[in-house]
Amino acid sequence: MVEPNRVLTVGAAQLGPIALSETRAQVVNRLLHMMTRAHERRCDLVVFPELALTSFFPRWHFDKAEDIDRFFEKSMPGPETRLLFERAAELGIGFCLGFAEMVDDADGAKRFNTSILVDKTGVEIGRYRKVHLPGHADYKPARKWQHLEKAYFDVGDLGFPVWRAFDGIVGMCICNDRRWPETYRMMGLQGVELIVLGYNTPATEPPWGFEPTHLAALHNNLSMQSGAYQNATWVVGVAKAGREEGCDMLGGSAIIAPTGEIVAQARTLDDELIVADCDLDACNHYKSTVFNFVEHRQPDKYGLITETAGSSGRRDQE
Amino acid sequence: MVEPNRVLTVGAAQLGPIALSETRAQVVNRLLHMMTRAHERRCDLVVFPELALTSFFPRWHFDKAEDIDRFFEKSMPGPETRLLFERAAELGIGFCLGFAEMVDDADGAKRFNTSILVDKTGVEIGRYRKVHLPGHADYKPARKWQHLEKAYFDVGDLGFPVWRAFDGIVGMCICNDRRWPETYRMMGLQGVELIVLGYNTPATEPPWGFEPTHLAALHNNLSMQSGAYQNATWVVGVAKAGREEGCDMLGGSAIIAPTGEIVAQARTLDDELIVADCDLDACNHYKSTVFNFVEHRQPDKYGLITETAGSSGRRDQE
Repeated sequence: MVEPNRVLTVGAAQLGPIALSETRAQVVNRLLHMMTRAHERRCDLVVFPELALTSFFPRWHFDKAEDIDRFFEKSMPGPETRLLFERAAELGIGFCLGFAEMVDDADGAKRFNTSILVDKTGVEIGRYRKVHLPGHADYKPARKWQHLEKAYFDVGDLGFPVWRAFDGIVGMCICNDRRWPETYRMMGLQGVELIVLGYNTPATEPPWGFEPTHLAALHNNLSMQSGAYQNATWVVGVAKAGREEGCDMLGGSAIIAPTGEIVAQARTLDDELIVADCDLDACNHYKSTVFNFVEHRQPDKYGLITETAGSSGRRDQE
Repeated sequence: MVEPNRVLTVGAAQLGPIALSETRAQVVNRLLHMMTRAHERRCDLVVFPELALTSFFPRWHFDKAEDIDRFFEKSMPGPETRLLFERAAELGIGFCLGFAEMVDDADGAKRFNTSILVDKTGVEIGRYRKVHLPGHADYKPARKWQHLEKAYFDVGDLGFPVWRAFDGIVGMCICNDRRWPETYRMMGLQGVELIVLGYNTPATEPPWGFEPTHLAALHNNLSMQSGAYQNATWVVGVAKAGREEGCDMLGGSAIIAPTGEIVAQARTLDDELIVADCDLDACNHYKSTVFNFVEHRQPDKYGLITETAGSSGRRDQE
């Protein structure tokens, strides 16, 4: 008997800019609106961006702890975010949400760039904390825009877990993680079939950005398409986009098949929902042929990958 | 004082089909012709495909050792290939050549899918043996075309070395190696600036191939472009292309910049030379920013990559 395919309808809920002046309640309202639209489109799961509750605050330097702390959630759900969980349960839709997480433990507060996976009953079933923090830890006065993720966040301490959820195997990563093949491979080695991720990617020309703007979309697509293909998994990448407080952010939210093909992509830099039917069984073909890891990988040849962070470039080696 | 950029002019010498009936001397003549054209175009280095001296013999099943052995080189240079080294020295051009290598050692003969890097004086300076052998080890009578690399070759035993050559850091890999991000990363961690590789990629529809033909070019580009970008290195990929003994082979030879941009690509399925000026200093920017490995990689989070080959797919895990 042939089993019916496992088709999961997924919505990528791209967000336009979030102003510094917007309250959590206002942002949550935008998310609820997107969630409702996703439900109307028959989505099983709706994916929101990285740090979806606030402006992308690592672009600014703050001296005082309280100026930073206001961007962080001390509980999830919290007073303003509880509505998302309630509405999800009501509609019977899962969601993935990125936010800044503050954790109090014996050593003092820890801060993470976090995302959660919530099932159709409004219950959190997975949590991921960003491993690859980009940018710098020190304030750089010469830059118009900072990228202070290494100052404001700790490196994620939960690894790259996957969860049996939504009738498949689901993993998460966040923004800069998507540029690193190790991210996808860690989940691929656990059989992942759907990776959901959000991003805030400045698309500013040098000297404030690090490259010409026109390359940002190429690199976004390339990283996610190769991660999908080389691990035979669906990838759903969701942007916070547009001109946020004067800083241009990349859009290009995309839903990518296990073949590496982009099957849906956002075309605006605003709140925009894109939807695709993700057949999780479409992963099986490549997982059992070209990317049958057991047959083809040679882990004893990959030593350096875990032995060293690496050289910081040719010139430094000499 | 600003150093002049290190610009290396590289030719990718795509080959059309090689018939079973062609002699080594005939094939070497084609290679000499391409080498001369590359010299006329002022190339410092010309890159030939994988198994560039013969038809892609793993597509056939052979019972007798002597039927297989005739495709292998027992010495390099050998009687017919010596001309390539002599002409290279004469012209002052380096080359990379893929061939089937037979090595006699105490345990009997070993067979590798090999490539060599030869400098402008005609001296071999680097040797690589293919690590990721695709296909199968057992004869599959139901297939029109076999892919018996796992039967005819041993897994490469030289790792993924890089060489200081051509005023830069150069590495090699072969064909299916290019689909595996570990390949590029192993060389990226050693500061590689130019990866040269050849391939023979069947582009046949199911049931003889494993996917629709139109995806073969996407996957070829995607693998090489992401490998280049994510390791901030030039990648030069060179096909044996066209209908070889009735079997269609992918073309699409490409020269790819450290940005992941394709700067030159073959458009025929025949002997075709494409050339690009590869500024090795163009690697520096990404190696010192987004892909500054020392600052951003988290090798203690990548354990599974070297601990396990992996699962062979979801269904097998259960």
